[in-house]
Amino acid sequence: MSKKLPYGMVGGAYNAFIGEVHRKAIAFDPRATLAAGCFSIIPQENTDTGALYGVDSSRVYDNYQSMAEKESARPDGVRFVSITTPNSTHYEIAKTFLTHGINVVCEKPLCFTVEQAEELVALTKEKNLLFGMTYSYSGYTMVKVAKDMIAAGKIGKIIAVNAEYAQEWLIDELGQADPGTAKLSGWRSDPKVAGISNCVGDIGTHIENTVHYLTGLKIERLLATTNTYGKPLDMNANIIVAYENGVNGAYWCSQIACGKLNGLIVRIYGTEGSLEWEQHYPDYVRYTPKGRPPEMLSRGTGYLQQPSATGNRLPSGHPEGLYVAFANVYRNYISALIKKDAGQALAPADLDFPNAEDGLAGVRFVHAVIGSAKADSAWVNV
Amino acid sequence: MSKKLPYGMVGGAYNAFIGEVHRKAIAFDPRATLAAGCFSIIPQENTDTGALYGVDSSRVYDNYQSMAEKESARPDGVRFVSITTPNSTHYEIAKTFLTHGINVVCEKPLCFTVEQAEELVALTKEKNLLFGMTYSYSGYTMVKVAKDMIAAGKIGKIIAVNAEYAQEWLIDELGQADPGTAKLSGWRSDPKVAGISNCVGDIGTHIENTVHYLTGLKIERLLATTNTYGKPLDMNANIIVAYENGVNGAYWCSQIACGKLNGLIVRIYGTEGSLEWEQHYPDYVRYTPKGRPPEMLSRGTGYLQQPSATGNRLPSGHPEGLYVAFANVYRNYISALIKKDAGQALAPADLDFPNAEDGLAGVRFVHAVIGSAKADSAWVNV
Amino acid sequence: MSKKLPYGMVGGAYNAFIGEVHRKAIAFDPRATLAAGCFSIIPQENTDTGALYGVDSSRVYDNYQSMAEKESARPDGVRFVSITTPNSTHYEIAKTFLTHGINVVCEKPLCFTVEQAEELVALTKEKNLLFGMTYSYSGYTMVKVAKDMIAAGKIGKIIAVNAEYAQEWLIDELGQADPGTAKLSGWRSDPKVAGISNCVGDIGTHIENTVHYLTGLKIERLLATTNTYGKPLDMNANIIVAYENGVNGAYWCSQIACGKLNGLIVRIYGTEGSLEWEQHYPDYVRYTPKGRPPEMLSRGTGYLQQPSATGNRLPSGHPEGLYVAFANVYRNYISALIKKDAGQALAPADLDFPNAEDGLAGVRFVHAVIGSAKADSAWVNV
Amino acid sequence: MSKKLPYGMVGGAYNAFIGEVHRKAIAFDPRATLAAGCFSIIPQENTDTGALYGVDSSRVYDNYQSMAEKESARPDGVRFVSITTPNSTHYEIAKTFLTHGINVVCEKPLCFTVEQAEELVALTKEKNLLFGMTYSYSGYTMVKVAKDMIAAGKIGKIIAVNAEYAQEWLIDELGQADPGTAKLSGWRSDPKVAGISNCVGDIGTHIENTVHYLTGLKIERLLATTNTYGKPLDMNANIIVAYENGVNGAYWCSQIACGKLNGLIVRIYGTEGSLEWEQHYPDYVRYTPKGRPPEMLSRGTGYLQQPSATGNRLPSGHPEGLYVAFANVYRNYISALIKKDAGQALAPADLDFPNAEDGLAGVRFVHAVIGSAKADSAWVNV
Repeated sequence: MSKKLPYGMVGGAYNAFIGEVHRKAIAFDPRATLAAGCFSIIPQENTDTGALYGVDSSRVYDNYQSMAEKESARPDGVRFVSITTPNSTHYEIAKTFLTHGINVVCEKPLCFTVEQAEELVALTKEKNLLFGMTYSYSGYTMVKVAKDMIAAGKIGKIIAVNAEYAQEWLIDELGQADPGTAKLSGWRSDPKVAGISNCVGDIGTHIENTVHYLTGLKIERLLATTNTYGKPLDMNANIIVAYENGVNGAYWCSQIACGKLNGLIVRIYGTEGSLEWEQHYPDYVRYTPKGRPPEMLSRGTGYLQQPSATGNRLPSGHPEGLYVAFANVYRNYISALIKKDAGQALAPADLDFPNAEDGLAGVRFVHAVIGSAKADSAWVNV
Repeated sequence: MSKKLPYGMVGGAYNAFIGEVHRKAIAFDPRATLAAGCFSIIPQENTDTGALYGVDSSRVYDNYQSMAEKESARPDGVRFVSITTPNSTHYEIAKTFLTHGINVVCEKPLCFTVEQAEELVALTKEKNLLFGMTYSYSGYTMVKVAKDMIAAGKIGKIIAVNAEYAQEWLIDELGQADPGTAKLSGWRSDPKVAGISNCVGDIGTHIENTVHYLTGLKIERLLATTNTYGKPLDMNANIIVAYENGVNGAYWCSQIACGKLNGLIVRIYGTEGSLEWEQHYPDYVRYTPKGRPPEMLSRGTGYLQQPSATGNRLPSGHPEGLYVAFANVYRNYISALIKKDAGQALAPADLDFPNAEDGLAGVRFVHAVIGSAKADSAWVNV
Repeated sequence: MSKKLPYGMVGGAYNAFIGEVHRKAIAFDPRATLAAGCFSIIPQENTDTGALYGVDSSRVYDNYQSMAEKESARPDGVRFVSITTPNSTHYEIAKTFLTHGINVVCEKPLCFTVEQAEELVALTKEKNLLFGMTYSYSGYTMVKVAKDMIAAGKIGKIIAVNAEYAQEWLIDELGQADPGTAKLSGWRSDPKVAGISNCVGDIGTHIENTVHYLTGLKIERLLATTNTYGKPLDMNANIIVAYENGVNGAYWCSQIACGKLNGLIVRIYGTEGSLEWEQHYPDYVRYTPKGRPPEMLSRGTGYLQQPSATGNRLPSGHPEGLYVAFANVYRNYISALIKKDAGQALAPADLDFPNAEDGLAGVRFVHAVIGSAKADSAWVNV
Repeated sequence: MSKKLPYGMVGGAYNAFIGEVHRKAIAFDPRATLAAGCFSIIPQENTDTGALYGVDSSRVYDNYQSMAEKESARPDGVRFVSITTPNSTHYEIAKTFLTHGINVVCEKPLCFTVEQAEELVALTKEKNLLFGMTYSYSGYTMVKVAKDMIAAGKIGKIIAVNAEYAQEWLIDELGQADPGTAKLSGWRSDPKVAGISNCVGDIGTHIENTVHYLTGLKIERLLATTNTYGKPLDMNANIIVAYENGVNGAYWCSQIACGKLNGLIVRIYGTEGSLEWEQHYPDYVRYTPKGRPPEMLSRGTGYLQQPSATGNRLPSGHPEGLYVAFANVYRNYISALIKKDAGQALAPADLDFPNAEDGLAGVRFVHAVIGSAKADSAWVNV
């Protein structure tokens, strides 16, 4: 199908978890097709993955540099590349493809330093490209509904925020004798690979991004405590933020909270009502108009105004799940790319997907949190 | 990729809801590829759908009869066909493909009469084919976990069942003046297209199938009341069943219950504990061992033994949703088909997907319920 | 305080569970005072209880007959007596006090046979007395709110009912070798003391009473299955009822459902909305107006119209609990009695407490359920 | 009954909310009897209340000073006095009764300044009296169960705490033009009557007390932001605490969070598990042992070890509610007082009720929070 939008992957071998999620999510959209890849640094895995997904062997590359060079030289070269490699490699890979004029979708985090992030943002602009980030929670339909409700003034002026992302999966690491041999957390607790933060970088940034996506609020400054429990990097953090409008929010992220799986909960309180959303039950939003009982809004129902930038895929009462959230991010990205490639102007509504600026905001957030914690919880400007 | 399993679709135009779900679900499995189709009786839709999904135009057929003939004659013909057309056409289409030696996956219901269903079951056996039914709720990972727990004796001998499937979506129809112009329910309340039942056939059968899948219990007889509220077909039903082991269960299905979306809830009580599952939150099972507090089991956790016939696709705490349930049904079906095509014997564990017998059981259930209701709630053998 | 309303107790020794609940509930009302009693057939317990609660020893009686005689002869005799003795004694004791012109509040069940119940109803009328029954769940404030909402048409015409009362506490009895030595259930499974039913009589009647209290619906006929699991009396029952308006309801009661404590759940569906209430969280009602999201109504909030016959005792968000439900029943009973004693006419709103007719309805319900179950689930008129 | 423990009340007119709760809670205990009072500064209300509750008119006092003098001079004088007057009067009244050798139970807050609180603590010790505080949430049975579980090591070493108390009831005040005329909050937002804090003092202290009661953790220092939204005192606060063991906790309290009633939620995370409790559903604790699913523990069940210092009053599944929590505080206080009066030594387990030290800790907490907020969120030692 020559009309299909060809894309490539860096990372995403058949046995890689998150790459597989990306590929399945893109497959929800018949407008795109996997055309090239550098799936693994293990040659056999690379070849096998290409074969499994029907990629022409001439477009299965040994390394991402040659992929960027050759694809950018082809008239039918990939229009975007999806990067799902380890975090420490995001910066170099993204930079390479941008430099070659190829659009990029990158797993979070964008990179490790503010300088790198600013460079990628600038490069994207300079090259006039589209850069997508898979902060996937913003892809849930009900998060979009909540965002639209807030924008429409349904909860009035925001006056308080409370959000958290708690997990339990690293609890077993606390008892381990050697802090260096963190088996569960793997690279996440290794400063060489994970950068300056484990917990805040891995999940705290999702709080930051989701609250920002929902409310548009910008953090002016923040203060924080982090807890490492004798390990190299943080595994728990309490953060108080001050937004530019003078309102405060409290964020808590943790990887050692027994009973929590991927407990991202965002609660926004305004002068006219409140909205609460929990990732475990993503098809619902608890909405309380001032002076009224809480209402449990459900995705896909007739009483909801459909979100501006996406629609429902399943009728109400049938859970859409995380794949659909990813698919929504990609759908919006692909729509924008097709429109841009057709020479049409992109309106703000066309850009309803996380981008490099969001990635930069995430990096800044992590640095501010870790910086405040090291400065005995002093306020740090973001 | 010549190695891929080619499949075809009857129904499933690009703008058809359930066909699209099927196609996306199959797309989770890189082993299968869409190779032929008769997607719509509207020629333009048929052509466009084929084009959109990259099906060679020579294999986009005007009608399912010629599709069955030609595909069965090709050496590279489709190995199975997925039927997602209106209910009243399932029987004829399925029969046609079976007759031509092509395996079938069919949306529920299998057909309208017990005789038709028995014929399809017999034909499947005679032709030595694999017949799958997309009773999709049995595809949820935690339903499989619950099934395995029951089989392993975790709740002892079953002594009571309570299950329901309640929806609200037809409530507005009650006020309509003309019972013949049911806008919302569409064909579902038209006896010519829907057969003898609306509510029991559409959602009551999911109760029957899910309880049977979980427990293996067979209904010996049942009695029922149905409510039509002045409309041609049932919109609410209360059913008491007697299983072959002497235990009773109560089933309730409704399309007029405000506040209910797709509220399939199955609760199984045994001598050693209980299991409760709700479709709205499919990644969880509430398990109460006798004399102990309820435990909220979550998909993907380390304390759960993985279900026998499928694995998790996402880590615990990330909702998988309905697409994955469909994808699990298809994955198991495709695995079985590949194994069978390779000449290997299929063990019971290989057959973990609903089949024509399940479809037959559903048809029998509907007839028994409607029959009992018409006989002033007398017991009817199933 | 001569102005206080003196009351007496039959049963309710200091170490008796339900009698203590009654006494505490009455103590919420400063208008009544415990003045006499026949607390126990064990003389020491009887004396000690009187002493503990400051009852003059001359009014602590050896038997209820002499209590009825002497109190009815005193000018300052008790105005009502609260009966909390074993079920099999309710009839005789109530009859005795009514005969002596003393008002009665009786624990459920009223008695064992329809004839006895009719006799007590008639005697109450003949003597022009007030007879209260402590179907305590009708005392919860939010049950009253729901009743008022239904009466006000908030859910339109009722079209379906689904209610249950499930417990787990007798599960251990199933494994016992000797059906006669039921330790847990005690007298409840002994036909000599419990009458014809265990589960239906003990908790099934609460379903019947609560649905009737909420909706005013009268059961025309019903059919049922019961399960005894080899024990003398029923421990699980499924019931389908037909109300006089042609609508059906499904009731399930069980004492062997692991994970259930006192799970009385009542769900009422109407043409304009639904109301759902659960005894475990009695301060909340889930209300879904047609075409709108479910609202979680909370007791004590400004958006609720206060219930007609009672008010809130605690601000919203502070659980009132079962004692308050009992206290509300007694408050309304005491208010009515004071008003009646003052020679004022009692309006229907003054009689917002369960009475002997409700007790009679309960006895009829039990007999119909057990009768249907014995007649292979035939319909039985109620 | 000469054997009953006579007590008195300061405040608690028949129409006063919290005084009535205290009186009903004490009435759960037949060992105590209301014998004296200074119920209101309005003479008629004072007299009427005494009459309503059967207090001898000679012991209904015009002012608390004469009550303290005369009762302390009587051989049958009250053994303790319950203070439920406005907050600003607690200190003087408590001091007066302590000085006269009368035991005190005081509503929270104990007083307004650390100096006052220390004085009351010292005076209590000097006079060898028992001082109770009605931090009532510590009276819930399941809070006691959780406390015992933590003490028994069920969740290991505590590593994180997250707690909140959110309300919505002052949201309407935000829009009012004149910050001085806060109608809803009344005296709570008036610095002259409420002291230095509204929200933190009123509900933030409940977080502090409940966490401390459950865990025994002592706050070493804390930092905070508060939000007044243009009003005289705080209505929202975010607090990060550092306990003496190096662990951090996050507390959030708010009176402007739409959808929240009395949302006290305490979540304690340890190396071996977690415990979560919510005041709206006080009969339950969510307990997650490490590596296991969450368990919903229910009050009154056989699998729970009964709490050390109290028992259940109702069977599991019947909500006990706030009155019982208050009654438990009073029961333990009265038991201790009777034992002390009998000359017996009091063991730690006998002192399971909040006391003056807890009141002092509350005052210190409020001052630290407000102090930190005024110092741009600097750490403040507690």
